[in-house]
Amino acid sequence: MTELKNDRFLRALMRQPVDRTPLWIMRQAGRYLPEYRATRAKAGNFLNLCKNPELCCEVTLQPIDRFDLDAAILFSDILTVPDAMGLGLGFHEGEGPRFANPVRTAADIDKLPIPDPEGELRYVMDAVRTIREGLDGRVPLIGFSGSPWTLAAYMVEGEGSRDFSKAKGMMFDRPELMEKLLDKLVQSVAAYLNGQIAAGAQAVMLFDTWGGLLSPRDYLRFSLEPMRRVIAQLKRENEGRKVPVMMFTKGGGQWLEAMADSGADALGLDWTTDIGEARRRVGDRVALQGNMDPNVLYASPERIREEVASILSAYGHGHGHVFNLGHGIHPGINPEHVAALVQAVRELSPAYHAPA
Amino acid sequence: MTELKNDRFLRALMRQPVDRTPLWIMRQAGRYLPEYRATRAKAGNFLNLCKNPELCCEVTLQPIDRFDLDAAILFSDILTVPDAMGLGLGFHEGEGPRFANPVRTAADIDKLPIPDPEGELRYVMDAVRTIREGLDGRVPLIGFSGSPWTLAAYMVEGEGSRDFSKAKGMMFDRPELMEKLLDKLVQSVAAYLNGQIAAGAQAVMLFDTWGGLLSPRDYLRFSLEPMRRVIAQLKRENEGRKVPVMMFTKGGGQWLEAMADSGADALGLDWTTDIGEARRRVGDRVALQGNMDPNVLYASPERIREEVASILSAYGHGHGHVFNLGHGIHPGINPEHVAALVQAVRELSPAYHAPA
Repeated sequence: MTELKNDRFLRALMRQPVDRTPLWIMRQAGRYLPEYRATRAKAGNFLNLCKNPELCCEVTLQPIDRFDLDAAILFSDILTVPDAMGLGLGFHEGEGPRFANPVRTAADIDKLPIPDPEGELRYVMDAVRTIREGLDGRVPLIGFSGSPWTLAAYMVEGEGSRDFSKAKGMMFDRPELMEKLLDKLVQSVAAYLNGQIAAGAQAVMLFDTWGGLLSPRDYLRFSLEPMRRVIAQLKRENEGRKVPVMMFTKGGGQWLEAMADSGADALGLDWTTDIGEARRRVGDRVALQGNMDPNVLYASPERIREEVASILSAYGHGHGHVFNLGHGIHPGINPEHVAALVQAVRELSPAYHAPA
Repeated sequence: MTELKNDRFLRALMRQPVDRTPLWIMRQAGRYLPEYRATRAKAGNFLNLCKNPELCCEVTLQPIDRFDLDAAILFSDILTVPDAMGLGLGFHEGEGPRFANPVRTAADIDKLPIPDPEGELRYVMDAVRTIREGLDGRVPLIGFSGSPWTLAAYMVEGEGSRDFSKAKGMMFDRPELMEKLLDKLVQSVAAYLNGQIAAGAQAVMLFDTWGGLLSPRDYLRFSLEPMRRVIAQLKRENEGRKVPVMMFTKGGGQWLEAMADSGADALGLDWTTDIGEARRRVGDRVALQGNMDPNVLYASPERIREEVASILSAYGHGHGHVFNLGHGIHPGINPEHVAALVQAVRELSPAYHAPA
């Protein structure tokens, strides 16, 4: 195995000292980059791109080549897992993802398989292996999965939704059915992430995009508990190094204390929580990742720098912070503004890591 | 003036003793009711309905006639104010609202008028007067407005949006411009609500639909502070009775302490905050309104009753609770399920108001 040249990101996730705050950007391989749009055009469509390990590697490396980022993240989609479970994923032009076979009944749930990572999902594992080779130890590679609840919400709804009424309808009316579906997803997601770790992912992240739509009680039961069970099943060591786990519930700022007890090493934060306040709440139990509003990148480089300064200062002195946006970068962002963000973190963060 | 026969709602907002927990439902006059759909068909479209005081009165009274609710709410739309400021509101079939003339520049903001409630917005004041007559003292009438930030977000964006990038772009890049717009909206909203109070509104509510999209710092500056200034300008007494003010920031559960110091008498809660926890946080400074997930109404009457029991129990014994959903009722809900909700609150809540 190639030696890892920049382990700042992994060290920060384990709350170990670093020289400056590491940075990566959610959706850093994305439509705001002209080189991404060129590769995607070559692939024909988004799903073809996800299913082609060479092109996945190409787009995963693009932001690493362009910017001074401290981690790469597997280019893929959270809906690969339900697709491999037989739901028939499609992306229709100008709309979001949609499943041909949504899950609605006990019989639908019974017949769902637990996908073999090296079977139906081998294209993802191949992408991980190809990217690791392509990275050649420059920065660590993050693997990821949607959380069981987030995947269940899409699988029952059949598509994206403002409030996932069908999924919540099942949860409220037939909670035992929703738990059965979540059980299958816990197994599928754990196997999927373990597959990615075995293939070379050096950290993994659970994206709980829709946990924030739940009440506190339902969040704990239907979103956090399944994530906790996934994490408990992960093989968290590879190549002689701990594989840290990050958990991100969009809109989950009210539940950080519970999330910090889930087994995750780091929590992702959106921008609705002050990161200094979050740090006081979770203490030194977990690292924190975030949390600039992606819309700040529409503003001038000077304003971007001020926002970076404000977030670094809110987190304060010491280790355990990974800089990121609080959600994925928007397609309309000027890459020059991303460069300004990267430069600001590089220049302003060392002061927070200097010996006291 | 007719004597108010049921003042349970107003008393609860002022944290005075009541015999049972009062209940109303956000969007209670809406598409889930066949009688509403019939009136709307008669009006031709949504804007015609909003601009016709007699039909507004008709739909406002429909849920009061059908269910045992403790308050009526003016049928209108939060975008009447920007429309009266010259933005040209339109509702296009199958889409949301859209403005013909969005606000983008300093010149756009300079030329915005402060609408006269009895001028361009007289149709709303007429609706308030007509509804008060129609209600004949059965229950109090709630007036309302969008919050300055929520209106500004629509006015800059020009339409609804997932993350209001244009509005946030102005806020991040030209905060002084956003504040200028908010100043005009503070004046407009205060005049609008005072007009409604003078016309007969017995309580008023600020709907801050998009405050939850902000960071804590930006929420305090761009959403809460303008609401505080609106509230400070309100004439909060009418017909010898205090006119309580409710404030509802969707997704604002992290900021309840600050909201409780804004001058509002009551805070609306969405379902992502436990109402008992919220009560502990705000103490006896404000009443609380909420907070059942509207999606619960898709479940069976038995499950609805369980959820009502759970929320009543979370709030606990004593006054200061107004039962409501945590967001507007969905168009697809079966009115029989609403009847089950009403019955559950009526039957289960008196126990929480019995003398200790």
